[in-house]
Order: sequence, then structure tokens, then C-alpha cells
Amino acid sequence: MSPTSFAVIGTGAVGGFYGARLQKAGFEVHFLLRRDYDWVTNHGLVVHSPAGNFQLQSVKAYQTVEAMPACDVILVALKTTNNELLPTLLPPLLRPHSRIVVLQNGLGNEAAIAQSLHASGHKEPYTLVGGLCFLCSNKLQPGVIEHLDYGLINLGQHGADERPVGITPVLQQLEHDFSHADIDIKLSANLQQERWKKLIWNIPFNGLSVLLNAQTNELMNDGPTVPLVKALMQEIVDTAARYRCDIPNSFLEYMLELTTRMQPYRTSMKLDFDARQEMEVETMFGNPLRAARSVGVSTPKLEMLYQQLRFLNGRIKASVDVHNYAS
Amino acid sequence: MSPTSFAVIGTGAVGGFYGARLQKAGFEVHFLLRRDYDWVTNHGLVVHSPAGNFQLQSVKAYQTVEAMPACDVILVALKTTNNELLPTLLPPLLRPHSRIVVLQNGLGNEAAIAQSLHASGHKEPYTLVGGLCFLCSNKLQPGVIEHLDYGLINLGQHGADERPVGITPVLQQLEHDFSHADIDIKLSANLQQERWKKLIWNIPFNGLSVLLNAQTNELMNDGPTVPLVKALMQEIVDTAARYRCDIPNSFLEYMLELTTRMQPYRTSMKLDFDARQEMEVETMFGNPLRAARSVGVSTPKLEMLYQQLRFLNGRIKASVDVHNYAS
Repeated sequence: MSPTSFAVIGTGAVGGFYGARLQKAGFEVHFLLRRDYDWVTNHGLVVHSPAGNFQLQSVKAYQTVEAMPACDVILVALKTTNNELLPTLLPPLLRPHSRIVVLQNGLGNEAAIAQSLHASGHKEPYTLVGGLCFLCSNKLQPGVIEHLDYGLINLGQHGADERPVGITPVLQQLEHDFSHADIDIKLSANLQQERWKKLIWNIPFNGLSVLLNAQTNELMNDGPTVPLVKALMQEIVDTAARYRCDIPNSFLEYMLELTTRMQPYRTSMKLDFDARQEMEVETMFGNPLRAARSVGVSTPKLEMLYQQLRFLNGRIKASVDVHNYAS
Repeated sequence: MSPTSFAVIGTGAVGGFYGARLQKAGFEVHFLLRRDYDWVTNHGLVVHSPAGNFQLQSVKAYQTVEAMPACDVILVALKTTNNELLPTLLPPLLRPHSRIVVLQNGLGNEAAIAQSLHASGHKEPYTLVGGLCFLCSNKLQPGVIEHLDYGLINLGQHGADERPVGITPVLQQLEHDFSHADIDIKLSANLQQERWKKLIWNIPFNGLSVLLNAQTNELMNDGPTVPLVKALMQEIVDTAARYRCDIPNSFLEYMLELTTRMQPYRTSMKLDFDARQEMEVETMFGNPLRAARSVGVSTPKLEMLYQQLRFLNGRIKASVDVHNYAS
């Protein structure tokens, strides 16, 4: 069997970091770029990391998917605000039995891809995998990624109707390849459960940090926001339970305790907001809200947070009209 | 019968404006001031108004209530954030049959005064009246008030257990005196109903304008906030109904239409927030929320708004430690 080939859609803080690690380990990696294409073509990719800085002098960079070869694994690391591009970007990269690994936040990204491929009449077999990244990294400038901490990817295979499909050979092969590139992998038998668990932290802390101009520690130190954080978490738990994802109360307590103990932290959504970048409101808030509504679970606080964030996002979008999906 | 005498607690944009109008009309008015005392003692009060500018060269200004005479009518125009001072400030100003007119926002201010006078063993008869001010005015500097527009006071008498007491002789006498000073008065038989109706506008628009850094027109123009405004209004309607205050749906529709049509407007709470002044969160949000809880009405969005605003207020208060109640 020849070594796995990778395509990276969205060569930013996430896709650039993991793609560079894979190439450094000897894999063939093809990077889709837009705004950063010229810089990366000339200078390659640079990663600053506590685990060791490195530079890839030469990378396979592309401006269009049509110029790229079909690959074994496609890493989807676009910001979800650009997901409407995926039905166009993905098909040219697929060969029979390709694995699409969705390294994105929020809920419903895998299902949306499955639906769009089905709608477009795609017939070849493929596997959809979701990856939850526990990674602190930023893109400092075109082609230069600053890795701050962590890096684990929690991988789970997407099943029809979001049903758990267990630890599959596809997951094991991915773990094998990523581990070869020094990327920590955890395999999960139930992708949806992992997605809901991540939302339990992401929804209150990303949302409130933007609305209240607050760091995570402030939300936990102050009286009135602690019950609000808990109420939001409970709404997610109630919804997840209806999707056969039972999250124990001890997990909530652990998340609260962890957040109280950890360093003051500006969430990814707050970073976007402060940079006047569109926030990932639909996948992180809108999709869970719609999931709750469709099974009749009342989530008034999630709904209000979504409405407030949509208002703020609308202002940002009104002043941004360029796609920056691949940089 | 000698002309009515007035005391003004809180000589700011509201108390200063109405007090100056009353003195100009010939009434005896005694003003309590703190920070502005020196300026007003030397220069009097100045009112800029589209209805005609005027200056009162000499006013009866005081630094303590102990130096003031008891009066027929006490106008309470403190910001509600300083209401903890009222149990101390009011008793020295009361004579038998004094009328206390509470020109404040929010819910429960009259009941709190009644309770504190009762608790202090106050025995003399007095009447509590609430006044809802529809007034646009600012204090430009010590002793200088800029009246921009409107000025009507909706007066209603406070009854035990918040029950309506109808149009009483006390209300009619107040109307007579205020009208003599060219102050528009509307009398209401049911004070609580009026307070709840005002909250229907104040809660969504004051609260969301602060959280979303928005003017009123933006909240009505944008998709996601319109259903949120409506949901908040409905929570207030549901709560008010349990207090025998039925507010017809047509009133909500009218408020929404009015707000859509009126000029872009920065709410009073937004003005406070922008000036880093403590916001009136407890009387405008906390008291209605507690009223809802005590009759078992679920108001999750009001609760969330309250929690969010308390968080922001906590930050303001942490950096403010001076009482500025009388200026």
C-alpha cells in the first residue's frame, strides 16, 4: 500500500498546522490556498511551535481544486462560515474510498457534506470522519503559523442519521498516519456524543465572551454569569439526550471546574469578533438550536444567545464582502 | 389653603427640570444636592428648553435633609441605584399628609418606600404616588439642564398590595399644581398597570441596546433581534397578567411600530453604560424577574438579560465607589 496522500482545504491555523506536520513526516500533502498562495509558493510554510520550529521550503500549493490531484484523505479546515463552498471544492478531490476529515467546530458539518454529495449525484464510496481539534494556534501572517499549545484531534466516524459506528478500520488507519506525524489522536466510537460535549463548553463560553467582552475566568468569577453558564449547559444536555447522547452531570461539573482553574482565555469566537471576522454562529449556535427545535426541546437561552450573536455577526458581515476561505 | 411646598431629592435631569418649572411657577421648592451644591448656591438653576430657556438666580439648596423643612410634596428623582438612601432621606421631609411622588423607572420603588417607612415605625399618614416620566433631558453640567423634548408625567396612586386605587383627590391636586407649572400630567387609575406597560418597552430596548451596542432602530431593523424583542415583551405580558394587569396584544404591536418609526435613539441605560455610570438593573430587570418568579411565571429571556446586565454593571460598580445621588 502506498503512503496516504492528503489534501488540505483551508490552509490556516488549523489546516496549515496539521498539513505541515504531515508533510514534514513524509506524507504527500496538497494545500489549497487563496490569498496566501503567492507567499506560500515562494516561501513555503513556517511553523513556530514549542515542540520545535520548522520550515517547509517547498509545498504543493494550489489556487483551485481543479489543479489538485484526488487524494486519499481530504482535511476540511475551512472556517464554517465558508461551508457553502464545500459542494464545489470537495468532488474534484475525491477518489474511490477517499476519507473526508472535517476539522471544524459546531454541529452538522458532516451531515451537510453527506447531503450535498448525495444531492450532486456523487456515486463513489467515501468515508466521512469528524475531528474535534484541541489546538491553540494562530496564523501570524501568510504561511506562518504559531502553534501555542495542545494539538490533539478527537476523531470519530460519521454514521447515517448521526448514529455511532464505533472504532472502524478507517479511524485506525488515520490514527496510524497522524501518529506518524506526531499528532496526538484519540478515537471515539460516537462522534455525535463528542460534538455535543464540545458544544457544552463552546456555547456558553464562546457566546458570552463575545457579548460581555469577557475572558473565560471572568465569566466564572462573577456571580450572575455562573448560573447563566450552567443553564446554557443544561439546555445542551437536554437536547443531546434526545439524540441518544447522554452526558453525565459530572462532565458539566468538570468543565466548570476546568474553566475556573485554567488561565484567562480569549475564546476563538472572541478573537474573530475582535478582529471583525465573521463568527461561526450558524454551526456553533444555529445548528444546535435547530436540532433542539426539531425534537421539541425548549432552549430559550440558547435561542437568545443565537439571536444576539446573529445581530452582531450581521454587522460584521455588512462590512465584509470578500471570501477568505483558504488563507 | 397655602400653596403646595415641594422638596426635590435628586436634582438632576429629571428632578432639576420639574423642580425648576415648579419654582418658576411660584411654588416653594427645596432642592437637595450633593456634588452640585456649591455651583447651584452661587448660580441657581439653568434650564435650556425648546419651550423657552430660563434661569432661577436663587434657589433653596441644601446639602442634607436635616437642614430642609418638611414639605407637602416630596419628589423622589434619585437614580434607583441609590434607593438604599431613601429610608434615611425621606422621614425628615415628611409632615402629616405629605405626598411622596416617585419619579423613577422600574418596578417596586413605591412598595420599597412603604415598607421602609413602616419598618422605621413612621406613624403619620402620607400618600405614595408613582410618576412615569416621558421626558428627554440631560444635565449638561452642575445646575444646567438641557430639556430636549416631551415632559409628560403619568401619575398614579400606590395602593396596598399594588392594587389600583383609582383617580383620587391627591392625584387631582397634584395635577392641578403641576399643570400650573406647565407640566403635562396624565392621571391613571391603575399605577401598576402603567409600570408594567412601561417595562414592556424598557426591558427589551434598554437591555439589548447595552448588550448589543445598538440604537433602537437597529434592533427593529435587523432580523434576529425582532423576535427576541417580541419574546421579551411577551414574558412581561405573561407576568403582568398574573398581577391583574392585562396588556392587550395591540399595545405590543403599537410599541413595536412606534419604535420602528421613531428616530434612532440611545436609551437611558445605554447613556449610563457609555458614561460608565451604574445602570438601573435591579429596579428595571431584577424586580420584574423576582415578581415573575414569585408567581411561578417562567421568563428565561428576562432572566438571561438580567444576568448579562448584572455582569456588566458589576464591572462598572467595581470602578465606582462614590455616591452621586444628589447631583
